[in-house]
Amino acid sequence: MNGAESLLRSLIASGVDVCFGNPGTSEMHFVAALDSVEGMRPILCLFEGVVTGAADGYGRMAGKPACTLLHLGPGLANGLANLHNARRASSPVVNIVGDHASSHARYEAPLTSDIKGFARPVSDWIHSSGSALTVGADAARAVQASREGAGQIATLILPADTAWSQADGVASPLPVPRPALVGADTIERVAALAQSGVRTAFLLRGKALQGRGLAAAGKIAAKTGARLLSDTFAPRIERGAGRVTIERLPYFAEQAADFLAGIELLVLVGAQAPVSFFAYPDKPSWLTPEGCRIAILSHPHEDGTAALEALVDMLGAQRAVARTNALTAADFSPGSTLDAASIMRTVAKHLPEGAIITEEASMAMAYSGLTETAAPHDLLALTGGAIGCMMPVSIGAGIACPDRKIVNLQGDGSAMYTLQSLWTQARENIDVVTVIYANRGYRILANELARVGARTDGAQAASMFDLDNPSLDWVALAKGMGVEAVRAESAPDFDAAFAHAMKRRGPMLIEAVI
Amino acid sequence: MNGAESLLRSLIASGVDVCFGNPGTSEMHFVAALDSVEGMRPILCLFEGVVTGAADGYGRMAGKPACTLLHLGPGLANGLANLHNARRASSPVVNIVGDHASSHARYEAPLTSDIKGFARPVSDWIHSSGSALTVGADAARAVQASREGAGQIATLILPADTAWSQADGVASPLPVPRPALVGADTIERVAALAQSGVRTAFLLRGKALQGRGLAAAGKIAAKTGARLLSDTFAPRIERGAGRVTIERLPYFAEQAADFLAGIELLVLVGAQAPVSFFAYPDKPSWLTPEGCRIAILSHPHEDGTAALEALVDMLGAQRAVARTNALTAADFSPGSTLDAASIMRTVAKHLPEGAIITEEASMAMAYSGLTETAAPHDLLALTGGAIGCMMPVSIGAGIACPDRKIVNLQGDGSAMYTLQSLWTQARENIDVVTVIYANRGYRILANELARVGARTDGAQAASMFDLDNPSLDWVALAKGMGVEAVRAESAPDFDAAFAHAMKRRGPMLIEAVI
Repeated sequence: MNGAESLLRSLIASGVDVCFGNPGTSEMHFVAALDSVEGMRPILCLFEGVVTGAADGYGRMAGKPACTLLHLGPGLANGLANLHNARRASSPVVNIVGDHASSHARYEAPLTSDIKGFARPVSDWIHSSGSALTVGADAARAVQASREGAGQIATLILPADTAWSQADGVASPLPVPRPALVGADTIERVAALAQSGVRTAFLLRGKALQGRGLAAAGKIAAKTGARLLSDTFAPRIERGAGRVTIERLPYFAEQAADFLAGIELLVLVGAQAPVSFFAYPDKPSWLTPEGCRIAILSHPHEDGTAALEALVDMLGAQRAVARTNALTAADFSPGSTLDAASIMRTVAKHLPEGAIITEEASMAMAYSGLTETAAPHDLLALTGGAIGCMMPVSIGAGIACPDRKIVNLQGDGSAMYTLQSLWTQARENIDVVTVIYANRGYRILANELARVGARTDGAQAASMFDLDNPSLDWVALAKGMGVEAVRAESAPDFDAAFAHAMKRRGPMLIEAVI
Repeated sequence: MNGAESLLRSLIASGVDVCFGNPGTSEMHFVAALDSVEGMRPILCLFEGVVTGAADGYGRMAGKPACTLLHLGPGLANGLANLHNARRASSPVVNIVGDHASSHARYEAPLTSDIKGFARPVSDWIHSSGSALTVGADAARAVQASREGAGQIATLILPADTAWSQADGVASPLPVPRPALVGADTIERVAALAQSGVRTAFLLRGKALQGRGLAAAGKIAAKTGARLLSDTFAPRIERGAGRVTIERLPYFAEQAADFLAGIELLVLVGAQAPVSFFAYPDKPSWLTPEGCRIAILSHPHEDGTAALEALVDMLGAQRAVARTNALTAADFSPGSTLDAASIMRTVAKHLPEGAIITEEASMAMAYSGLTETAAPHDLLALTGGAIGCMMPVSIGAGIACPDRKIVNLQGDGSAMYTLQSLWTQARENIDVVTVIYANRGYRILANELARVGARTDGAQAASMFDLDNPSLDWVALAKGMGVEAVRAESAPDFDAAFAHAMKRRGPMLIEAVI
């Protein structure tokens, strides 16, 4: 058994059985091992930003890591932006980064670079294997590291000689770290505050926005009258008809401030206190109302679900009936105009139960409230603000949940960052429908230009926001990568295309011209 | 005048008048300043890998830096791989990276990241501006830093408040650093060695492969009988008919070793001693023959051209007649089979004088000797091995040299990395013809798999090299971004398409199916 086989078998033994990759020469032994070792599904992506975004999506939906396979420093570098997003999503990811053989490092060959330097800003754990004899144990440790806290980025660097040299076995899996429990005193303190009669909101993030956590939060809200909030960019939230109603924090700072106005106690459950996404001249970044008390029920690395359930018990809220969303979204007949609102009403109308919405369009975010009354689904948002995330996240979500429909609501500007995703969607027959909000521009920036006080109506600035010279033809781009595509220019056209897309299986793209 | 205007005016005063960018909210004041300040040409790219690759191409051809405009850490991260290549090309590049306002940094907003950490592995100079009052001087210093040595990567981080706050003027340009002169003793020593009767080769890189440097090297070779060599991946070389003949080091280590066999003295002119690109089990990385003496005429930061001219004088070679290439490539009638050889013969036949070949396909590299006898041209190669480089480099070369035809010889796998380049090529009407070597796979890797001793004929490994399920349709992809495209499946078809492309102006893509 060589080091590559030892690594691969150890990953599989630790429960990692999906590998998103774009290998190069230094990873060839790992690639060869894919044939001699059973149990790892390799998925080729044609750019590393797709690799790491897919691993993020997989981690969010599978609740365990996939591994990536990346070629040296530049291969890792191409994946950094989506690792930044994955880290902000607390997604577990294990990066396997090939390196030059240790004997070759001193020669400063063209691809030599500081791989640890590239990895550091996005990794919670980094290790470079020193020998084929340790790569198995290193892999087991990387998997464990990726599952610490709420989920982490673990980067294991594998010099080529550690892959091709003789190894001596498969490492046993290490225990999956369990989240820390919140102390009873904390729960007592929050219970007392929540019953003190002040206007209270719970801001939830992480597992607290799923299943048992949501159910407990719903009972607490019913018992105490507290509001239930989520971040604008929660990694994953279970929502839709029958699910506990959660208010989503608006994106723009002044709207967020209005939304939070009047709250006297903000209880954080795996979340940070809200701050504006960007700074604006003479506007505060800190959004919690002045004088509002902040209480932390659970930190991100702690078990927020258990804390919420303990709080239910302490409040005697076991029988409280949570407020849930009704199923009303199906009642929509499109008029003629195709716009962000009519797109979302159509999405909500046809969304199948169990769908996964991946959202990366400011125009989708603005109307996301319309899907709260659609069939129950998951919503995955752009956690780190690095665009080019959700097309690959859709791949990973589809691999993790092959029986669920993925609906990717995607801006055209951000879609261009990782459009190579379409090819992998076609190859792996991912059941994803990509809706491109084709407004032919970085509209969010035209808006932000004025908001930061940088007013200009000049042509040079405008040319930096407009994508209409030439116009992108998304039907042609999708076809070029083997994905069926249609263009919709009216609301009824979009309704028909989206309804059709929900009934078929496999990747499809709808260019919604708005 | 705000900081953004001060920055922009100072860049322009220092001779930087082209900006490749993909801005975000934190760069909006810089964008607005593009309208209030005359003299900067902004060029929008739809992905940051295109931005930095274009800056590399511009730097190689203009001999001075363009600036980039990048959005926070993730925007820089997306551009790192091509900055790695640019650094290996010694291209001068000034990165302007927006950052959160200094007051906002503490809040750990979603896009907060360690920008200096991202920049460090690829930057020779990094600075984060502390005040709007210093950004002008910081910009002048960044430009100067980019021009030190043979050319460097300078990264200037610009917190949003330094852009929007009041500034107080425009910084004067700093002196352009001149390369260090090689001492007379070094030249005397090399002259003595070169006349000692041993088999000698000069390995040239940088400016020594252009104009006066080449002319001097040609005289030295004629006088002494030395061979003239270039690296496999020289950033830029002037070659073709009438130019001094330079032998290119082969890519594969065993071929390179054969190529260098028998050399007893290797003189380095701005080059490093040759090493293999990758390490292979039980094969040496160091390629200089055992017992061969290495002499350094000039280091990369020194003036190799002046050193070669001084050596000409010392050798009394002023009247020696250099060996130059004949113009014979036009004599080619294609047979029926389209392959890497017939593609290159067609390229050589029709290549117009003054063309710039940008090369990123192993099948193009293997036949690059066929263009030595084409019309005089420049050849730009993939210096750092990070694929996805030459489509954007073609943009930058086209901006720097609008009157020269760009011929981009591009593998399909590497083209997918930065295919967004086509859109900017269309928007800016770059006079570039992209020839896609559509072999539907990472063929170099299928080859390397066996070379590293990782033999397998299994399906999983093969699936990591093949791009044929589904096949990429490059005509559709180009059309989707506004670039005219045709597919050629036979040698006569390719000959006709390429001949047509040489006669028209503006971007075009030819998918050569091989």
